Amino acid sequence: MAAKNAFYAQSGGVTAVINATACGLIQEARRYPERIGTVYAGRDGIIGALTEDLIDTSRESDADIARLKYTPSGAFGSCRYKLKSLEEHKAQYERLIEVFQAHDIGYFFYNGGNDSMDTAWKVSQISEKLGYPVVCVGIPKTVDNDLPLTDCCPGFGSVAKYVATSMREAGFDVASMARTSTKVFVLEVMGRHAGWITAACGLASEGAGEPPHILLFPEVPFDPERFVARAKECIDRYGYCTVAVSEGLADASGKLIAEAGGKDAFGHAQLGGVGQVVAQLLKDRLGHKYHWALADYLQRSARHIASKTDVDQAYALGKAAVDLALAGKNAVMPTIDRKSDSPYLWEIGVAPLKDVANVERKMPRDFISDDGFHITDTCRAYLRPLIEGEDPPPFRGGLPDYVRLKNSAVPKKLGEFKL
Amino acid sequence: MAAKNAFYAQSGGVTAVINATACGLIQEARRYPERIGTVYAGRDGIIGALTEDLIDTSRESDADIARLKYTPSGAFGSCRYKLKSLEEHKAQYERLIEVFQAHDIGYFFYNGGNDSMDTAWKVSQISEKLGYPVVCVGIPKTVDNDLPLTDCCPGFGSVAKYVATSMREAGFDVASMARTSTKVFVLEVMGRHAGWITAACGLASEGAGEPPHILLFPEVPFDPERFVARAKECIDRYGYCTVAVSEGLADASGKLIAEAGGKDAFGHAQLGGVGQVVAQLLKDRLGHKYHWALADYLQRSARHIASKTDVDQAYALGKAAVDLALAGKNAVMPTIDRKSDSPYLWEIGVAPLKDVANVERKMPRDFISDDGFHITDTCRAYLRPLIEGEDPPPFRGGLPDYVRLKNSAVPKKLGEFKL
Repeated sequence: MAAKNAFYAQSGGVTAVINATACGLIQEARRYPERIGTVYAGRDGIIGALTEDLIDTSRESDADIARLKYTPSGAFGSCRYKLKSLEEHKAQYERLIEVFQAHDIGYFFYNGGNDSMDTAWKVSQISEKLGYPVVCVGIPKTVDNDLPLTDCCPGFGSVAKYVATSMREAGFDVASMARTSTKVFVLEVMGRHAGWITAACGLASEGAGEPPHILLFPEVPFDPERFVARAKECIDRYGYCTVAVSEGLADASGKLIAEAGGKDAFGHAQLGGVGQVVAQLLKDRLGHKYHWALADYLQRSARHIASKTDVDQAYALGKAAVDLALAGKNAVMPTIDRKSDSPYLWEIGVAPLKDVANVERKMPRDFISDDGFHITDTCRAYLRPLIEGEDPPPFRGGLPDYVRLKNSAVPKKLGEFKL
Repeated sequence: MAAKNAFYAQSGGVTAVINATACGLIQEARRYPERIGTVYAGRDGIIGALTEDLIDTSRESDADIARLKYTPSGAFGSCRYKLKSLEEHKAQYERLIEVFQAHDIGYFFYNGGNDSMDTAWKVSQISEKLGYPVVCVGIPKTVDNDLPLTDCCPGFGSVAKYVATSMREAGFDVASMARTSTKVFVLEVMGRHAGWITAACGLASEGAGEPPHILLFPEVPFDPERFVARAKECIDRYGYCTVAVSEGLADASGKLIAEAGGKDAFGHAQLGGVGQVVAQLLKDRLGHKYHWALADYLQRSARHIASKTDVDQAYALGKAAVDLALAGKNAVMPTIDRKSDSPYLWEIGVAPLKDVANVERKMPRDFISDDGFHITDTCRAYLRPLIEGEDPPPFRGGLPDYVRLKNSAVPKKLGEFKL
């Protein structure tokens, strides 16, 4: 069988380790030149395929590809562009096949979250329907950690390590200032529907009274009275109170506590500011000075404090995607299978895309303490291994030395396509 | 001459390396038992001296004292409590001498910023006046980097490294998302009157078009029209725009662009939110989706990414303070004297407290580009060495393993004192 080219695209919000997946995938593909010709990357994700804006990764040196392993964000560009049903977006799906055909692409690797796994699944269906065979492999990636059938999602472990480290450091700071100054500190982290990242903040506390004192999850309807009472209890007892809150904190009616108003391409509300809302509430009710921090993109791009476990898994999944494709496995996603908590043992598994697509994994209820304000030991046992190990990037002149690729374009063969 | 005890206190906002200074001071003092008896630390800073709430550091093991070198925040507690003039606060100054006398304290080490150097200076005067000799040595510490007569201030270099690293990482993130999502990112950093920390964000960009694209300094009156125009230019040219802004950004009339409303113990306004204000301005005027981050305490407590240069200087200044005191130098502050930029060569110098007290060093005008939106090469030459070198703390279970001291109290000998 003659070599076919491969197409790889990054999708949705980027992470500190999605390029480690790209690194694993490209390095593995380069080991099989007789099976895989060139790995083309989509410039700005799937949009690159639709507009035939392909990046020729063979123009990048082995050295630069190796540097992807410690470079955060999406080296080829990502996008928030959701392909709807085959009926609604028939033209888009057909265009993808047309582009794949024009560039002799036989492998489709899509690196993203739920929506992307759904797209990869649909592409595998249309390629069959149109009689142009493409092996479709989805590769998990999301700081939201909400994909099913895998122990965790690459990107999450590094965010978890970042927020837990930041919470611990800010906690030490507030503890030393509380007597005459700031008594309340709130860290707002990502998490619209699931409190995975807020839960990770909880790892910072190892003993009674250690920050964070209160975690506010989207899974637990916000009750201002109970929150103020618990915060007062903390301040009376420890002299200060530290809080981690999910951007998606909502009240019993499901209404978000804070909303910036904007909407992203998927119609999700653009959030930010709930941290200040709950901090101000404590100031109004208890009169204490507060500080709050909004980690925003810092948390998902903080490659300088990435989890080695996360980097290793992200890389392994990229490599596994190629191995699955070469084994002729179609419409699948490599997964992380946990064998044991401590020591943390894991291996690569595989799941059918149809079982992954659009299924959102919630945080188990028994991960949240009965009072709803912290994490349980069960949760700690799950989270702890995911932040283990350090894998700092090389530094130059005091700053992380990340790679910027050439990203040279592949000559177009087709006409324009209107998105 | 019989051994005298020493008093050490941490003052004002804490940093990632103030404990490295405490480490250097205590380790050096332990080398001279015949000259220095016990180092007492003030619990919560100078308040510990006024209330006779002293911590016996001799109860801490050498191993734990060594761990202070990589533990952020103030291990003995700090405070925002300003001693006013000798006339206004006569009772406080006399109380300090009374406490020093009761505990046979002959050395006063005060680790802080401008206000603290002023206090140390006044204590040296009162001790003379009251005929109880105390050798007073101030030790510089402030992320604001605004003390005169020293090349830089311990704490600043590590904040600088943190914000430049964070800006670079967030910049990579936004660049990869800009096509279909966030086109504007704003990072708000500390800096009420001086733009030192905002300037440090500028180190993240090494080539044309690299983030951050725009820096907003308190030294440059904010002009919304010019800012929007420059941001539009960036987005047209690079597809996105990244901004670092000082909390103290103000308009031509000196009015702060954003103010949380609260006031701290010194009557300084409690700031926060200007990042969102300028981001929202771009959304309103240009219609682009934005994200913003508020580093707040994360930036000054981020020991995990501290500058080795900063840690080394903080430690050396603590050690030097003891050596100066033992040499009988009174009313002085050890300084950092820069000998060359590259390689960065520095040595410990000394300055009289009276020349340091209440003098605020501004950022030189030639550190800011003519258009007011970035830093100059002169500024880079000054800043670059301060963020050089990494000195990560040990990690345990995936998180920095910081020390919590016993902080056992010294029995009181005097009556109560009302603050």
